[in-house]
Amino acid sequence: MNAVGLAEMLVRVTALNAAYAAAIDDDRLEEWPGFFVDQCLYKITSADNLRDGNEAGIVYADSRSMLADRVLALRRANIYERQTYRHIVGTARLIGSVAGEIRAETPFLVVRTMRDGRMDLFAAGRYRDRLADQGGELRFRERIVICDSSHFDTLVAIPI
Amino acid sequence: MNAVGLAEMLVRVTALNAAYAAAIDDDRLEEWPGFFVDQCLYKITSADNLRDGNEAGIVYADSRSMLADRVLALRRANIYERQTYRHIVGTARLIGSVAGEIRAETPFLVVRTMRDGRMDLFAAGRYRDRLADQGGELRFRERIVICDSSHFDTLVAIPI
Amino acid sequence: MNAVGLAEMLVRVTALNAAYAAAIDDDRLEEWPGFFVDQCLYKITSADNLRDGNEAGIVYADSRSMLADRVLALRRANIYERQTYRHIVGTARLIGSVAGEIRAETPFLVVRTMRDGRMDLFAAGRYRDRLADQGGELRFRERIVICDSSHFDTLVAIPI
Repeated sequence: MNAVGLAEMLVRVTALNAAYAAAIDDDRLEEWPGFFVDQCLYKITSADNLRDGNEAGIVYADSRSMLADRVLALRRANIYERQTYRHIVGTARLIGSVAGEIRAETPFLVVRTMRDGRMDLFAAGRYRDRLADQGGELRFRERIVICDSSHFDTLVAIPI
Repeated sequence: MNAVGLAEMLVRVTALNAAYAAAIDDDRLEEWPGFFVDQCLYKITSADNLRDGNEAGIVYADSRSMLADRVLALRRANIYERQTYRHIVGTARLIGSVAGEIRAETPFLVVRTMRDGRMDLFAAGRYRDRLADQGGELRFRERIVICDSSHFDTLVAIPI
Repeated sequence: MNAVGLAEMLVRVTALNAAYAAAIDDDRLEEWPGFFVDQCLYKITSADNLRDGNEAGIVYADSRSMLADRVLALRRANIYERQTYRHIVGTARLIGSVAGEIRAETPFLVVRTMRDGRMDLFAAGRYRDRLADQGGELRFRERIVICDSSHFDTLVAIPI
């Protein structure tokens, strides 16, 4: 990619990341699967897991319908209702572009606010993404959420 | 807006947000009202307040001179002097453009550092903004600061 | 600079900041000196120190080889191994451009994750940078890390 193509792609990836985070933080979870292609891979794991070659992850979905199922389960459980999450997403680094696919890595931080006003650092880490253009819209083929911590809340309530 | 217009507008909004945050964090509070048009609306509120239709807000100003008065009051009170604030502002999402007015939403996080070195999460939330070009400079017509927490320090010391 | 030149420069500075942070957070410390020109200045200090005219700083290096020495020392000490760091870097503000040199200021936040999963705010502050193009790549002539807190861990383990 030339400099113009690079800047344009960076703007598109940045806008996608911002829309993704806002859908979660605004509790529009039903929109979340729409950021992925049909045959996608979404995984929450830790840097330690990756280093150890442990492919399982804490959360795993390999299709958009599995993501939609997850949202339904979260809505039924209602466990996240008492908290608010705020994603602060850093600048995407474009790692490369192969066969119409963009690879990017992006740091993130998620702050949680309890109903009583207490705030804490819920998660920090980086996204490892493979992105593709689908009918003019950028979508995730793969989003691996690599958390810095290996200690997850017994159930990771929301998408990260 | 076309893609070029969108990218250019995103750069301008991003630059405005960065300048705004730096003026506060560098303790150049007197510059803060200058980021707004004369007849503006500035409000600090919470997501719960908005949901409940409570329009009041914790902090409210509907003109630039009210913002200037607030800065004078803060300087007299000197209450913020013992702390430092650091805004980390996320990527602006451009929601729309109507009649020369840009609408944007942007997540933020404010970290507070006490004189003894302790740091805490002071505020997290999102800005809901209406922006207009005024003589070549982008300015806020409206900045609604929507905090994730409804529990505010008895007095919100600084602008957010 | 005109608007196009400004946007292009902002993209380049932003990409440099993202690559710099990722090299540290991914534990590719050996790449860190490569972000600087040979005769550089790197300093970690506090806002209080700067205000008092104290030029010393907590960490000081005035050449790339001093930075490389510091990385070697860190590798030998191994003290940072039990922790993970995550830089969240805000938007760069371009302060000016003099004689082919860019000046920028950029807020940052560093979150630390312990081996047992505990996370804390490790540092917040701003970078004060002087940048130059070196053979087509943007490099730091000077990076002053101005921390909001004056209370440093007895040894600042990693580059910030």
